[in-house]
Amino acid sequence: MLWECERVSPSGHPWSDGYAHRVTIDAAGSEPLIGGPVLVVGAGLIGASVAMALTSTGVETYVSDLDPRVAHVAASRGAGADTEPPDNVCLVVVATPPDDVGSAVVRALTAYPGAVVTDVSSVKAKPLAEVQAAGVDASRYVGGHPLAGSERSGPMASAADLFTGRAWAVVARDDCDPDAVRMVRALVHACGATAVDMATDDHDLAVARTSHLPHLVAALTAGALARAPERHLALSGQGIRDVTRIAAGDPQLWRQIVLANADTLSGLLNEVRDGIDELVASLSGRDGSRVEAILQTGVAGTAAIPGKHGGPALPLATVTVAIPDEPGALARLFADAGDAQVNIEDLRIDHDPGRRFGLVEIDVAEDRVAPLIEALRARDWSAHR
Amino acid sequence: MLWECERVSPSGHPWSDGYAHRVTIDAAGSEPLIGGPVLVVGAGLIGASVAMALTSTGVETYVSDLDPRVAHVAASRGAGADTEPPDNVCLVVVATPPDDVGSAVVRALTAYPGAVVTDVSSVKAKPLAEVQAAGVDASRYVGGHPLAGSERSGPMASAADLFTGRAWAVVARDDCDPDAVRMVRALVHACGATAVDMATDDHDLAVARTSHLPHLVAALTAGALARAPERHLALSGQGIRDVTRIAAGDPQLWRQIVLANADTLSGLLNEVRDGIDELVASLSGRDGSRVEAILQTGVAGTAAIPGKHGGPALPLATVTVAIPDEPGALARLFADAGDAQVNIEDLRIDHDPGRRFGLVEIDVAEDRVAPLIEALRARDWSAHR
Repeated sequence: MLWECERVSPSGHPWSDGYAHRVTIDAAGSEPLIGGPVLVVGAGLIGASVAMALTSTGVETYVSDLDPRVAHVAASRGAGADTEPPDNVCLVVVATPPDDVGSAVVRALTAYPGAVVTDVSSVKAKPLAEVQAAGVDASRYVGGHPLAGSERSGPMASAADLFTGRAWAVVARDDCDPDAVRMVRALVHACGATAVDMATDDHDLAVARTSHLPHLVAALTAGALARAPERHLALSGQGIRDVTRIAAGDPQLWRQIVLANADTLSGLLNEVRDGIDELVASLSGRDGSRVEAILQTGVAGTAAIPGKHGGPALPLATVTVAIPDEPGALARLFADAGDAQVNIEDLRIDHDPGRRFGLVEIDVAEDRVAPLIEALRARDWSAHR
Repeated sequence: MLWECERVSPSGHPWSDGYAHRVTIDAAGSEPLIGGPVLVVGAGLIGASVAMALTSTGVETYVSDLDPRVAHVAASRGAGADTEPPDNVCLVVVATPPDDVGSAVVRALTAYPGAVVTDVSSVKAKPLAEVQAAGVDASRYVGGHPLAGSERSGPMASAADLFTGRAWAVVARDDCDPDAVRMVRALVHACGATAVDMATDDHDLAVARTSHLPHLVAALTAGALARAPERHLALSGQGIRDVTRIAAGDPQLWRQIVLANADTLSGLLNEVRDGIDELVASLSGRDGSRVEAILQTGVAGTAAIPGKHGGPALPLATVTVAIPDEPGALARLFADAGDAQVNIEDLRIDHDPGRRFGLVEIDVAEDRVAPLIEALRARDWSAHR
């Protein structure tokens, strides 16, 4: 084993004796801490942000780039030092453009025989194949992929908190040294992200669906705007801006990403093309129920996306209020709910004209049910869950 | 002429004598004011919001809906009265579901022979054809289309400021009475929106590009998620959320919209399908330059979308700063720019290692150039535009 891993007490600090490639884990096993020094290769948006995050947690960090001015800008913004790293780096984070990841990982494994090597690129099978083909010992290489980014690029867009609360795929393999995997999980933890374990091919299919296909679809939709007369674009609303925002991303970067995942992506693109064919046929045949079925599948897809921080979407609950059949009653109810700082998500009225009272069902976020009921009862409404 | 229009002084208020179907325009001609009463037919998101906007500017407004409870909710939220409107309504705003717009316009033209009639639906050729086929005098009908909305629907999502700063297409025709057009422009103004004049077919092609095609593409992309195993969705980032957000819209509503614009939309869908075919071929042939060209067209499309409030995208300007070749100089420059509350959008360094000074080019918003130069000079930097 080329690096060490030990347990210290929860209050302990990483053991440091100059032999630095180590991860320390507290007694509970839940809070791995990363030692140092760490070298980040590539000082673009992701690399500079990783280096800033590590530096901000006190890890000795070095950053390099093919263009030393880019590394210098990153270092000046708090990404550590852009000087020559010591020989005892314990972790190399490869954050180069996608096409260079495989060769950069091989170089890092060779140059730092005591270090764990990971990368942050968004495709995992291709660089792994390149590493394996190079004939080096790949057990110290564990692929990674932080799910954060921006349509901006370069070190000026970087931020130490870019990964806070984000998912970060850790793509371990059977031939990985378990301590190397632990080191990469410690990196994820140090950057404030949440590790998501995935197998190589599963990861590439998942990001094809959640990232690469949406990017290409956004580019094609934006392309339809590039061909439009300018007066048509005056009608652009928020929808088209949302759908096309990511299409502003760097074409050279995205060319490399989609080519690296070409085969997986082609299958999904063909699915979308089949969907378009079905839509065109349905529109031509004025087949409303077929169109609606496609739209309904889309609604189901948006509902399947987990909540922003990886949790489930906000659950709603219903509060039922009895309401007198008199002018202004509903308005008074809305005002009272508003005073209680409760956001009404949806509402239904159940009113039999023969009765003096109707029932109003108010949908609110689950955690607002109790405050709403309390506030309404304090204002003499009959409210219950 | 069935309604009046007159000019009053800029300080004047709408003339009111009980004969109410009128628009008043100030002496400069730039600030049309709408009289009343106005009837809004359909109390969903858009109808209720129009009625709330009119009510908030003091216009006597009535709101109706097939479901009187929906109208009652809207009225209770500030959308005017849900009682029977008087005979002298000057303007009827049809805000029914798309399939019902044509017949609702015909009913309004017939029921209120002294009123201008407009609608807010997102397709214009189909309802116009229905109105013309009904044999009524269509000169009092001027189509409209506010570019605002939400993936939410119904009166609970409505807001008086939904249209503030938004574009609102006014689709006049040669056979429209000019005073009717003026009345609809006054409605747009009263709602805080900006009128955009468009011809019928041109409008429908424009919204096919900027709204209907993006919706269908978002639905197909979200559909690919609906078929994915749940573990793949853990990797969902902001990009897929943005691309698919509008796909959460009401399928019954959107079915009507896309079917009403079916032929125009089919042409655009076929363009996207051709783009997918080209992408699949390029990926299969590992043809990076072809992939990049498609992505580059997408970038051009995103850049073509005008700024949020209809203006051009934020223009950037470059400030050049001479910087000494010494440790910490860049960091000090960033800190000083930050203190000046100026956001650095991009940055390039031009440094000849043989010289003691380099040049840093800083891109900032046009209106931040002067404050940045002033702040940097006060801190002894040599900075110029």
